[in-house]
Amino acid sequence: MSQYDNVTVIKKANQYFDGQVTSRSLELSDGSKVTLGIMNPGEFEFSTSAKERMEILNGDLLVLLPNETTWQSYSSGDVFYVPENASFQVIANSVVDYCCAYL
Amino acid sequence: MSQYDNVTVIKKANQYFDGQVTSRSLELSDGSKVTLGIMNPGEFEFSTSAKERMEILNGDLLVLLPNETTWQSYSSGDVFYVPENASFQVIANSVVDYCCAYL
Repeated sequence: MSQYDNVTVIKKANQYFDGQVTSRSLELSDGSKVTLGIMNPGEFEFSTSAKERMEILNGDLLVLLPNETTWQSYSSGDVFYVPENASFQVIANSVVDYCCAYL
Repeated sequence: MSQYDNVTVIKKANQYFDGQVTSRSLELSDGSKVTLGIMNPGEFEFSTSAKERMEILNGDLLVLLPNETTWQSYSSGDVFYVPENASFQVIANSVVDYCCAYL
């Protein structure tokens, strides 16, 4: 799916790490929440409250998932899941465009 | 207006200047187009094809509009217009969150 139809978009971006990571919040027609985000090159740690489905739209991302010891590499089109109430680390070696769905 | 309702959002971000400027394309329910964008700190020159309404959602932006010799400063909540088929220069001294409407 390349686009979302009939959604609500919050105009103002969410900003994290002094704007190195930014995202737009969408509410889909079924009430579910998605963010479309950009990571600048860098190392970041995120925490989840809900389970998340992360889709890489563009760029390359190294990810250390919770309870893992091996970093995984994800590129455009790849998807990974992060459990709820967990933290995960990422290394963006380029600008990364992503879509995060809250499950 | 803090949000857009019943819109279509293209998932993949538009990227300019090697990802230093990124934006999401929205089509509003009346068919008009808007982009919600992020500028990293830097100096950029943009060209317009349609007249544009630029709204600063967050951050500070210095702008040199076409046929002007004086830079203007715009901050959160400020709006400026750029004629069609013109170029304008900006200096972002911080991460700038903006909304561009194509008129």
